Amino acid sequence: MPRWKPDAQQRLVVAALQLFVEQGFDDTTVTQIAERAGLTRSTFHRHFTEKREILTAGQATLSRLMAEGIAAAPAGATPLTAVASGLERASSEMTSFNRELGPLLHAAIEANEELRERNALKSVGMAAAMAGALGERGVAETTARVAAELGVLAFGIGFTRWTDPARDPEPGDLAALARTALDELRTAVSELH
Amino acid sequence: MPRWKPDAQQRLVVAALQLFVEQGFDDTTVTQIAERAGLTRSTFHRHFTEKREILTAGQATLSRLMAEGIAAAPAGATPLTAVASGLERASSEMTSFNRELGPLLHAAIEANEELRERNALKSVGMAAAMAGALGERGVAETTARVAAELGVLAFGIGFTRWTDPARDPEPGDLAALARTALDELRTAVSELH
Repeated sequence: MPRWKPDAQQRLVVAALQLFVEQGFDDTTVTQIAERAGLTRSTFHRHFTEKREILTAGQATLSRLMAEGIAAAPAGATPLTAVASGLERASSEMTSFNRELGPLLHAAIEANEELRERNALKSVGMAAAMAGALGERGVAETTARVAAELGVLAFGIGFTRWTDPARDPEPGDLAALARTALDELRTAVSELH
Repeated sequence: MPRWKPDAQQRLVVAALQLFVEQGFDDTTVTQIAERAGLTRSTFHRHFTEKREILTAGQATLSRLMAEGIAAAPAGATPLTAVASGLERASSEMTSFNRELGPLLHAAIEANEELRERNALKSVGMAAAMAGALGERGVAETTARVAAELGVLAFGIGFTRWTDPARDPEPGDLAALARTALDELRTAVSELH
């Protein structure tokens, strides 16, 4: 039994990812997604303009939250402290729905080249959003890009640990896992030379 | 006048990128690419299995060269020195053809969402190849991932400067530009906190 009560949008996301795994992204239609979710095409279109938006909607939200968190960091915060604030803000919005979806999302991405590409673009989009928010704080461009890349890596590592079924029961909340990952990266950076 | 004498493969690449800019990736056929290059479809297929390979062939070569350069670094080299060796190796294989193609490649990528995604995946693939090669040298996983991301950023910054028409005449060789970018990133890293 899922621990979340899926609403229409969540049911559409789950149905879509299942179909992407089973038959590929290209061969999946909006009609099939709606049918699998027990909903109509017009309900689908109240939530998403097209099937690829199922994958990009979350990305845009994450990027916005990261940027907001970075902007909200205290005035004197270092670049990595600002990044930590971005991770905190983004993590706080991730629900147990996102967590349980993790393995399915991973399977869908592994199964489809097009989805692997979308996922890669998502990382690039998140990094750009974070670097932009750091630039607004007066961080120099190169420093901002490096700090943003570390932020994306930290969120990815934290999210992977958070959604890893082998790590059940509760491995801690996502915000703590992302913070730990960022600290590991900070240490790794000091070992680069 | 181009400074390089294009062979069949290079003519196909230029023709394909021009068509991707003019009419989009999806709407461009192999027949059109061959026609624009003044070649036949069967010549196209001697060089590429399909049109998307025009974009991925270079990526695979770059990733291989980066990994080879990292493997060839002296035994005691730090992770970033090994990355510098990878950048050196990859840069040394880039010709004036690659350089003159830069602006066209940039335009094609900007014009097409699908190509932006492929380009994003290319960065991810290069980072994975570099991190793998660093892992083979005994570099811890997190350190390897960070060093690899810095390598990809350095190559990207160096390549952008190398191919920027506004920076003509000769802004120096790509290897030197990538090395300078890596040094800038190394400094940026020390300012992260």
